[in-house]
Parts: sequence; C-alpha cells; structure tokens
Amino acid sequence: MYTLSDNFSAMKPSQTREILKVTSQPGMIAFAGGSPAIEAFPCDEVTKISNEILTENPVSALVYGVSEGYQPLRDTVKKWLKEREGVGTDDDSVIITSGGTQVMDLSARILCTKGDTVICEEPSFVGSLNCFRSHGLNIVGVKIDDDGMNIDELKKAVKAHPDAKFIYTIPNFQNPGGTTLSLEKRRAMYEIARDNGIVIVEDNPYGNLRVAGEDIPSIKTMDEDGIVIYAGSFSKILAPGIRVAYALVPDKMVGAFTIAKQVSDVHTGVLNQMIVQRWFEEYDVNAHIENIKKIYRKKLNLMCDCLDKYCGGYISYVRPEGGLFIWAKLPDGVDTNDYVKRLIERKVAVVPGSAFMIDSNADCGYIRLNFSTPSDENIIKGVEIMGEVIKEF
Amino acid sequence: MYTLSDNFSAMKPSQTREILKVTSQPGMIAFAGGSPAIEAFPCDEVTKISNEILTENPVSALVYGVSEGYQPLRDTVKKWLKEREGVGTDDDSVIITSGGTQVMDLSARILCTKGDTVICEEPSFVGSLNCFRSHGLNIVGVKIDDDGMNIDELKKAVKAHPDAKFIYTIPNFQNPGGTTLSLEKRRAMYEIARDNGIVIVEDNPYGNLRVAGEDIPSIKTMDEDGIVIYAGSFSKILAPGIRVAYALVPDKMVGAFTIAKQVSDVHTGVLNQMIVQRWFEEYDVNAHIENIKKIYRKKLNLMCDCLDKYCGGYISYVRPEGGLFIWAKLPDGVDTNDYVKRLIERKVAVVPGSAFMIDSNADCGYIRLNFSTPSDENIIKGVEIMGEVIKEF
Repeated sequence: MYTLSDNFSAMKPSQTREILKVTSQPGMIAFAGGSPAIEAFPCDEVTKISNEILTENPVSALVYGVSEGYQPLRDTVKKWLKEREGVGTDDDSVIITSGGTQVMDLSARILCTKGDTVICEEPSFVGSLNCFRSHGLNIVGVKIDDDGMNIDELKKAVKAHPDAKFIYTIPNFQNPGGTTLSLEKRRAMYEIARDNGIVIVEDNPYGNLRVAGEDIPSIKTMDEDGIVIYAGSFSKILAPGIRVAYALVPDKMVGAFTIAKQVSDVHTGVLNQMIVQRWFEEYDVNAHIENIKKIYRKKLNLMCDCLDKYCGGYISYVRPEGGLFIWAKLPDGVDTNDYVKRLIERKVAVVPGSAFMIDSNADCGYIRLNFSTPSDENIIKGVEIMGEVIKEF
Repeated sequence: MYTLSDNFSAMKPSQTREILKVTSQPGMIAFAGGSPAIEAFPCDEVTKISNEILTENPVSALVYGVSEGYQPLRDTVKKWLKEREGVGTDDDSVIITSGGTQVMDLSARILCTKGDTVICEEPSFVGSLNCFRSHGLNIVGVKIDDDGMNIDELKKAVKAHPDAKFIYTIPNFQNPGGTTLSLEKRRAMYEIARDNGIVIVEDNPYGNLRVAGEDIPSIKTMDEDGIVIYAGSFSKILAPGIRVAYALVPDKMVGAFTIAKQVSDVHTGVLNQMIVQRWFEEYDVNAHIENIKKIYRKKLNLMCDCLDKYCGGYISYVRPEGGLFIWAKLPDGVDTNDYVKRLIERKVAVVPGSAFMIDSNADCGYIRLNFSTPSDENIIKGVEIMGEVIKEF
C-alpha cells in the first residue's frame, strides 16, 4: 500500500484549523480567526469593476495568463510599491501570486532542498511554518523581543547554521507577536544576511495596516545586494478571498520564481488580477487604506482597553501598532490549553500560542487574539469573559 | 551568495514557453498553444453569474475560504462526476484546486520524496513533467502505442522500479500524443498499480472533449482499493483563466491533500469557485459540453483533412478522438528543430516533440499541433505551409 512522503507523514493538522472549526459554532465569540474586517472590503467597487471587465471584454479575463502575472498589474504594483514604500529598484521585478503564503512556498521551492535550514522568528505565522515543514526544512527559531527578532540570538543561529538558506521575518505587526522590527534591527538583520550569503524573505502582509507610530522602511529598501524577497498581499487591504498577492524579487531570481509558479498552479486567476488592476485605475487605493485604518484603529484600541480593564494584572501584552493580532501572556503557572478549553466552554475562541511555536507541543504561556473580525460588542463581552476565567486559575 | 535549490538549479525554461513567445508575434499562425477555443467560453453566462454573486452577497465571495474548497461546489462536482462519468464512491472526496496542474503538484508533494520514481507516458504533458522535475523526482518514461501506454513496457518499468510512487497517465486524448488508453489497458494498468502498491494519478482534462468514438470508463471507476487520484478541470469546458479544477481522491488521502493545498496557496479563489457552482445551478453544463464539442469536432476534422491534403505521404499522425492536439510524425531523417525553425520563418509556430520527452534534448521526430485556437482560415493556411516546407527536406 502507498505511504505518504517523508515530509507529509510528519505533518499534523494545524491547531489553528481545529480551533477555527470550533469558532463556527453558533454563539461563539471568535478571537481565533485571522481575517481582515469584512466592513473594510470595497464591495461596491469590486462588484462594479468585475462587471465592467466581464461586460467589456470577457475573453480577456477568461483566457490563460502568463505565470509571472498580468503585466499591467505587475507594472502597477511595482510603481505603487516604489511610490508608497520606496521599495524596488530597476533590478527587481514583481511576480503575482495566489495569496501571500504562495510567496513563502515558491521561495522555499527555489532556494531549499529537503533538510536545509531556514531561520524564523519564534513564534511565527503557522501557515509559513507549516509550509516550511512540508518541504522537510529544518526550522530554527529566534526569539522575539518587544522590537522584533533578537539580533544576538540571530547571530548565534547563523553561526550554528552557516548554510541557512533564508531568514523569514514578518517585520510589521508580526503574526502572532504583534511586534514591529526596529530600524536598527532591520539594518542589522540585512547585514548579517548579506555577510553570510543568506536570503531574507520579508513577509509584509500587514504593513499597510499601521494604526499608530511611524512607518519604518522595509528591509527591501536596503537591498543593494539583491538578497531580499519581499512579499505583500491584497488580502488585507482589498479582500482575502480574491487570492491576489505579490513578490518583489531580485531579477536574477525571476526565472526560477516563474518556473516554480508555473509548476505550482500555472498562473493566478486572470479576472482576479484584472479586478485588482482596475481597482488601482479607478479608485484611490491609498485613500482607501487610510479609511480602513480607522476601523482597525478603533477595534485594536477597544480590545486593548478591554484587556486593561478586565484582565489587567493577569494578562499582559505589548500594544501592537497595527496588524490584526494581540499576543497576550497568561500568568505564570496557568496551563494555556486548560485556559483555552475553559474559554471555549464559555463560548470564546482564542488560539493557544503553542500553535505558533516550532515545537507545537510546547506550552509557551501565550494566546493569540484577533481583533479585526469580532463586533465591538463581542470584543467587550469576550474579553470580559477572558478576565472572569483567568481569575479562576 | 545564495544558490538555487538542487531541484531548481537543474530546471530549464520550458521550450513550449519559449515557442509561445514567438507565437505572439504579429501575423504568426499559432499551432503551438494549448488553449481551448475562445468561442467555446460561456462568456455571457459568466458575466451574468459573476454580477449576480457580487450584487447579492459580495462578502460571501471575498472572505477566506477553506482549503478543501467551497463546499457547495465540492458537492456539485462529486454528484456530477458520479452521474456523468460514474466515478467516485462514498469513500472518495472532491478537493477544489487552482487549475489541473495543481493536482499533480499536490500529489507529488504528499506522495513523493526527492529522488523517488514516478512512471509517466513518454511523451507527456510538459507542465506535469516540469512539476515532477521541480520536486527532484526520477521520471521513468513508458512509450505510448496508438491505444495508449505500452503495458509490457509498464510492467518492465514497475519491475525495475518497484518503489515507484505513482503512475501518471492522461488516458483520454493524451497531451501531446492524442492517443486514448483502451479499456483493456486501463484494467491492466489498474491491476499492475494495485498489485505493486503504486498510486495512479489519472489526469483527465480533455475527457469531456470527445468528438468521435465511444467514452471509455476512467481508471477511477475501477478503484475499489482507493489508489487512484483523479484530476479534472473546468479549464477546457468553461475557461482556463478562471483557474478552477478538482481532484477526486480516496478519503484517506484528504487530510494530506488539504494540508498540501493549505501550504501551497491556502485556498482557490472564492469568487472563482462560486462562479462555477452557480454555472451548474443556472445552466445545463452537459448541454454546454455537447455544444462546444461541435466547435472542436469541426476544427479537429479540418486540421486532419488539411494534413492529409497538404502533408500526406510526408507527415503522419493518429487521428485523435478528442482533446486539443495532433501529434504529427515527420519523415525519417528530418531534423525537427530545423523544420520548426523554418516554419517559424514562414510564420507558423508548432512545438517540437522533444519538449514532451523526459530527455528534452533528444530529437523524437514529432511535432505537436494545436487545432483549438487558430481560425479555420489559419488552419488551412498553416498546414499548407507545413506541407510546402516539409517538401523542402
């Protein structure tokens, strides 16, 4: 009888996924998701644009596309990234992908062979960790401080693994940590990578959702050596179901990225790409981002205020300056799984922090809270219950 | 400096791809593509449906979906496959994918480790071959006869590679061979696979485009042992740019398939899946297929008639009973690349057969012709030029 591949026989279903099944139960207050706020979706715009495209020239949206992506969108994203974030040079190209996770998958495919080492923040996004696991990679975690990845630990990790293929980082409003990598640390990380022949995969899905503080230049802005793969997405600023994201990659990697995309799914849906392209043509995307930030700012502040009010002295956290998540520390000695279980009994779903650890069996004493999807009413009610339950321990 | 992974440093850009760049030159008669006929796309229907979905409930089409696929579409496809083709049991499930190639990629991911052997028809679809190459697999080719894979050669290949992970076959109107695997050979292939603990990946993108002869039950209909992964697609009966396809897989593989899909691209676009689902709800898909077969029948017959008229005695072929391609044999001693080059000078683009061989440097003496995309006028003109040029050798 057949057996699963070595890589897949070691894979376990994602804990987050299991938790998400619970969150769909009636009456459940869901702090466990990772979806952007649906009230931030430009629904009318997408409806109008999609209808225009399909009425004017349906065939153009239904034929095969090229693997690199719809050229007008590639050009638009490149220009927009340069103007908005100052990233990208004449030696970089945009590749359109089917969601942001695909950038990590393509990067792993072109750069890594089974058994190779990649260095990640710990905790980190479970989707990326699972992607790296699925390629049989050796994942080395580096702890995060309040201002992002600990650089001394990174140096030690690179020294211990000089053949590491890339450093994976979520510099802005890290998932799940909520932390933002400081400018000094970005510079230090770039230098370490460059000096050791290591690529950086800079995953920035949340960068446009900054609701406090000042923007910090991305690591890609420092990329004079062509060693940074920058990943961005329209999932958080337009909508996730449309599955359009992008990688900004050094030109010398474009050939391999294109082949990897081609053998993965040939190309991203053409209608999907044309919708995003026309959204840029007909609307002011930067103004839209400023508008939706108000929604995120309000929800983030509400959840933080509730945590202070109902859980203060018990549950601590570093207030994120954006993104979708709060990384909340339980009191010492509290069993996270037990707390999560009791919360589910009280109809509040959160993700235990262990889901984001490299050893997902370890209890890390944290939970991840999502503030973008629950209603204001449920944020208040849910955090109040969190406070009641934590005091039972 | 970074290096590409072992798998990717060995990859070359696809020859087909290079040829396709040429086909976009003005005035070029393109027999090199692989696209379905655009006049067969149900454009008005897609426009109407898409607008309905986005007007009625845009959020439903824009939120995150689940990795397995949009449940109503999974149910619809399962029922449709059972009714139309008699495939699928209570122990099979449908997974929605982003195009058909992704089924091959997910299958390779869950079943194979770098260095593992897979057995394919030779020639075979270059997209699948490249996918397997990108995973560092050892591809063993088995020659095809007029009625599909040579079973004696298959037995020898299995004997030489008892640990082969799967047999990859395109049973109907093979790409590029145009051949259809006979019922007897389907049974024999199933028995060989079952007796040797090997999975079959049955890739059937063209099965609905039969224009002559009788339907033959798919290998999946024989799958009492849960060893067949069946891949189908809406690319050829609806439109390719929408990127919706499916795998019908034994339930015991669903968990691994779901994880593989999740780490690849999380899920297929929700609007895309809803369009296909509503197409089934509002229209008669089977009637649409019967209608578009007329287009394919006419074009296939036209190209065959032209080949007989202009190239008879020089270029030979087995008349396919469907699909998109004719696999045409050049006279002995003719250098394929030279012929292809001279055709391009005369503004006719075809793909040299070597692109579909496991050793893509070998001259196999064949070319692949696509009849679904060129106009009737260009089919006549292009094949006439083919005849003129072949007589120069």
